[in-house]
Amino acid sequence: MANFGGHAIPGTFFLFYGFWLTVKYVLQHYWRTNQPKGRQIMPPFFKRMEYIEGGFTIFASFVGIMVEQFVVDGPHAHLYDRQNNSWVKLMNWQHSTMYLFFGISGIALVASNASKLVPTGVDRLALSLALFVEGFLFYYHVHSRPPLDAHIHSLLLVAVFSGSAGTVLEVFLRDNIILELFSGCMFILQGSWFYQIGFVLYPLSGPVWDLNLHANIMFVTMCFCWHLAVALLLVACTSSVVWFTVKRFSARGRDIEIGMRNTSSKTSSQKALLEQSDEE
Amino acid sequence: MANFGGHAIPGTFFLFYGFWLTVKYVLQHYWRTNQPKGRQIMPPFFKRMEYIEGGFTIFASFVGIMVEQFVVDGPHAHLYDRQNNSWVKLMNWQHSTMYLFFGISGIALVASNASKLVPTGVDRLALSLALFVEGFLFYYHVHSRPPLDAHIHSLLLVAVFSGSAGTVLEVFLRDNIILELFSGCMFILQGSWFYQIGFVLYPLSGPVWDLNLHANIMFVTMCFCWHLAVALLLVACTSSVVWFTVKRFSARGRDIEIGMRNTSSKTSSQKALLEQSDEE
Amino acid sequence: MANFGGHAIPGTFFLFYGFWLTVKYVLQHYWRTNQPKGRQIMPPFFKRMEYIEGGFTIFASFVGIMVEQFVVDGPHAHLYDRQNNSWVKLMNWQHSTMYLFFGISGIALVASNASKLVPTGVDRLALSLALFVEGFLFYYHVHSRPPLDAHIHSLLLVAVFSGSAGTVLEVFLRDNIILELFSGCMFILQGSWFYQIGFVLYPLSGPVWDLNLHANIMFVTMCFCWHLAVALLLVACTSSVVWFTVKRFSARGRDIEIGMRNTSSKTSSQKALLEQSDEE
Amino acid sequence: MANFGGHAIPGTFFLFYGFWLTVKYVLQHYWRTNQPKGRQIMPPFFKRMEYIEGGFTIFASFVGIMVEQFVVDGPHAHLYDRQNNSWVKLMNWQHSTMYLFFGISGIALVASNASKLVPTGVDRLALSLALFVEGFLFYYHVHSRPPLDAHIHSLLLVAVFSGSAGTVLEVFLRDNIILELFSGCMFILQGSWFYQIGFVLYPLSGPVWDLNLHANIMFVTMCFCWHLAVALLLVACTSSVVWFTVKRFSARGRDIEIGMRNTSSKTSSQKALLEQSDEE
Repeated sequence: MANFGGHAIPGTFFLFYGFWLTVKYVLQHYWRTNQPKGRQIMPPFFKRMEYIEGGFTIFASFVGIMVEQFVVDGPHAHLYDRQNNSWVKLMNWQHSTMYLFFGISGIALVASNASKLVPTGVDRLALSLALFVEGFLFYYHVHSRPPLDAHIHSLLLVAVFSGSAGTVLEVFLRDNIILELFSGCMFILQGSWFYQIGFVLYPLSGPVWDLNLHANIMFVTMCFCWHLAVALLLVACTSSVVWFTVKRFSARGRDIEIGMRNTSSKTSSQKALLEQSDEE
Repeated sequence: MANFGGHAIPGTFFLFYGFWLTVKYVLQHYWRTNQPKGRQIMPPFFKRMEYIEGGFTIFASFVGIMVEQFVVDGPHAHLYDRQNNSWVKLMNWQHSTMYLFFGISGIALVASNASKLVPTGVDRLALSLALFVEGFLFYYHVHSRPPLDAHIHSLLLVAVFSGSAGTVLEVFLRDNIILELFSGCMFILQGSWFYQIGFVLYPLSGPVWDLNLHANIMFVTMCFCWHLAVALLLVACTSSVVWFTVKRFSARGRDIEIGMRNTSSKTSSQKALLEQSDEE
Repeated sequence: MANFGGHAIPGTFFLFYGFWLTVKYVLQHYWRTNQPKGRQIMPPFFKRMEYIEGGFTIFASFVGIMVEQFVVDGPHAHLYDRQNNSWVKLMNWQHSTMYLFFGISGIALVASNASKLVPTGVDRLALSLALFVEGFLFYYHVHSRPPLDAHIHSLLLVAVFSGSAGTVLEVFLRDNIILELFSGCMFILQGSWFYQIGFVLYPLSGPVWDLNLHANIMFVTMCFCWHLAVALLLVACTSSVVWFTVKRFSARGRDIEIGMRNTSSKTSSQKALLEQSDEE
Repeated sequence: MANFGGHAIPGTFFLFYGFWLTVKYVLQHYWRTNQPKGRQIMPPFFKRMEYIEGGFTIFASFVGIMVEQFVVDGPHAHLYDRQNNSWVKLMNWQHSTMYLFFGISGIALVASNASKLVPTGVDRLALSLALFVEGFLFYYHVHSRPPLDAHIHSLLLVAVFSGSAGTVLEVFLRDNIILELFSGCMFILQGSWFYQIGFVLYPLSGPVWDLNLHANIMFVTMCFCWHLAVALLLVACTSSVVWFTVKRFSARGRDIEIGMRNTSSKTSSQKALLEQSDEE
């Protein structure tokens, strides 16, 4: 999908996914740090979040594959054209393959929440593999293109492979909030960079970029760092907002909870006090 | 062995080895998770499995070396031809070297099971080294070949080096089921990719592949990802089947065991009960 | 800033920062090792040190950005020149971007000291990112320059990326004095190497270096190792001096502290003694 | 030192050092595994071994530097020839630099044994740095040489950098016998490969090797794997021999020790028994 929309759609998805991960991880981190030592079981609310995420990932991947296959100029599930002895629309097939692996990561997420038998960390390994496959296919994708086009895509790979490396570390270092926010940040970076690629290669307005000018390559490299800075800022702001919102709500919720507990446990605690005073 | 068979034979071996590792690791994982904390010693059944695996690896490596050396057009253990001042059949010697390291990994597996003195993890280090040597020799092997031939072999290296990296991590992170299944998956991927190489370079039927066409390289890259997806699916299915089969059998077995224990320990437990009632 | 001063200024900063880190880490290590198990809270003195460091980093980065932008031949905050259809002073913009990320690392340091909600390790991740971005921009910076110029800058990258890798490890392995001193050492090495670059590319006196001579490249490579040796020596000496100075002062301080504690706790301890003697 | 001797001398050193490390690590491992939990202090015998190793490394490095500098055709401590405007014998200076870092690693070993203030792991970091610097200088050393010459040196780098990576891991994973034996193995591999380089580039007898023939490069790659196999075998044999020798001696020693303890502690134990019987 070599047009602006073809880059804006995945960009939007990755941006939203990055924000979603940030919110989810901050909520889980809040729960972990504010929990007494005894209770370690995640509340059903988090499980439901994971199911929704997994289900949505599977659905979006399926839709993505269908669109790539059955769009007007798509391959319509034909891989090889025997008449012309050539492959049919390999680009669409490659995109379908990328979606397939994100779909697999969605299935892994649902499975690891549905059953305790699935070893912890399979969901992260699957997500890391999905990112790896995306980067792997892009790597051979950008071969023999004009310098700026190749460079701007290889910068995308920095975000993709960093995200993949961060996510695979989460398999071994569970519940590390820094790693989790880092992978959220890399998704946001990837999303905003997709938009940037769209703006550079298919400008909506203004002059066309010279794909061979060295100064453009230098600017784009620097621009990637700015995107990274903005992604860091967005993750920091989102985390803070989520944290303080939850804190305010949970403080109110706890007051209610404590109130309820007080009325229910008054009798027993009064008894205990009476017994204590007897012993003294 | 530049023909289809020369790729199908190692492919078959790696496929079987991948499945074997998956089954073995799932069985061990089942044992670990269903064991009470007290008993930590592996039952002799697992030891016997390791001996069989080690013995078979040694045997297969030995046969492989012999075949590579004494096949009709082999080097017959001659390394240097003084008359022509040239090396004799270096390709066969390289394959023999690969087999040698898999043989060493078999010896390490047997040794680490036979004696407690051999430090834990030596077997995994030896297996990782065997994969590393295989990849290392292949890496210099594919030099100066047509693009598709070089590319399809370098994709094999992705599976080989990933497997090597995963296996070397197992030296430090023992009994991590995700790492174990990952290395099983990489063996299956390697095995199925050997078949793919055979089909591409020495097609049994249909047209010969153009080794210089860029579209072929793009297709083959994508095809590697499909093999990976299938390998993941196979590992997931095999694991589930093994797990539930063992669960059903062990449930039945435990009933029998508990039944036997009941009859045998009745007297002593009745005694204990009697003594208890006496004390009260 | 393609002159000697343009390399000496960042060199001086990195040198000082390296020494500062060494001193800070040795002081913290001294505190950790000489503390009884019970007290684990860092004294306010260390917090103040971190605030000063963070504040200074933010200030220096801000000044750096302003200078790069509003220097006489700077871009004056103009990025694109619409009249000539060209980017304005991309080099200055790149340097500003580098400073920006060091500024972010300063903010992260202040934030992680000011609030307990900021997860531990965010400061190190931000510092590592700042180094990574510096190296990343330099990497594309040195493209298409004479061999010696490119080589001497790529040697700088060895120090930068090693420092980045060491610092990111500190996120996961907190309070590891070896990692901490290593990252201090890499900053010193980076600082002294900036000076070396200045001396080679813009010699203050003596003949101009031939930028294409292979012998010069060989010498410069070796010279980098000498800088490393000197940096190791400097870190070792600084650490020793700081350690023994603190030891002497803290020994005197402890005598005073013990003296004060004695007078203040005499009454209670005498009481306790009296009670003990009563019981016997 | 471009002759056979110039490769045989460092080869011999590395071979011996590899064996020494293997023996030392196996002895320490034996001590660790056969020790009751209470006693954790290394006996003075190990400390003395470390002092000897460190002292020898410092001495050998010093001699190496001196020889490289003041050999007949050496630079005699002159770095730059102002008359010819050229560097003096850069090769000898590079070798001196390598020796310098091994000397530093010797100093680190002595220091970390002499004082408890030196953080644990500094000796391994210094050794890893020495190997890294060796590899780093060799890497730029082999530039623009005939293919076989470059290739045979780059294979050396595999052993050098693997050893460096293994040793740096030991900083964080102390007392891991597998890592320790691996680094011993890499030193043996490096030593034997130095001999191989000598045999190939400066053959003592027989025909001169064609430095451009691809078959030679293929053979040399395979030959490196054979050296690895032999190094593994040597480490395994040495470890076993040392282990069983120590076991036999320590068994005899323990009998004596137990005998001595019996006689010496008889009075006290008899007393204790008497007291026990009194209480009953």
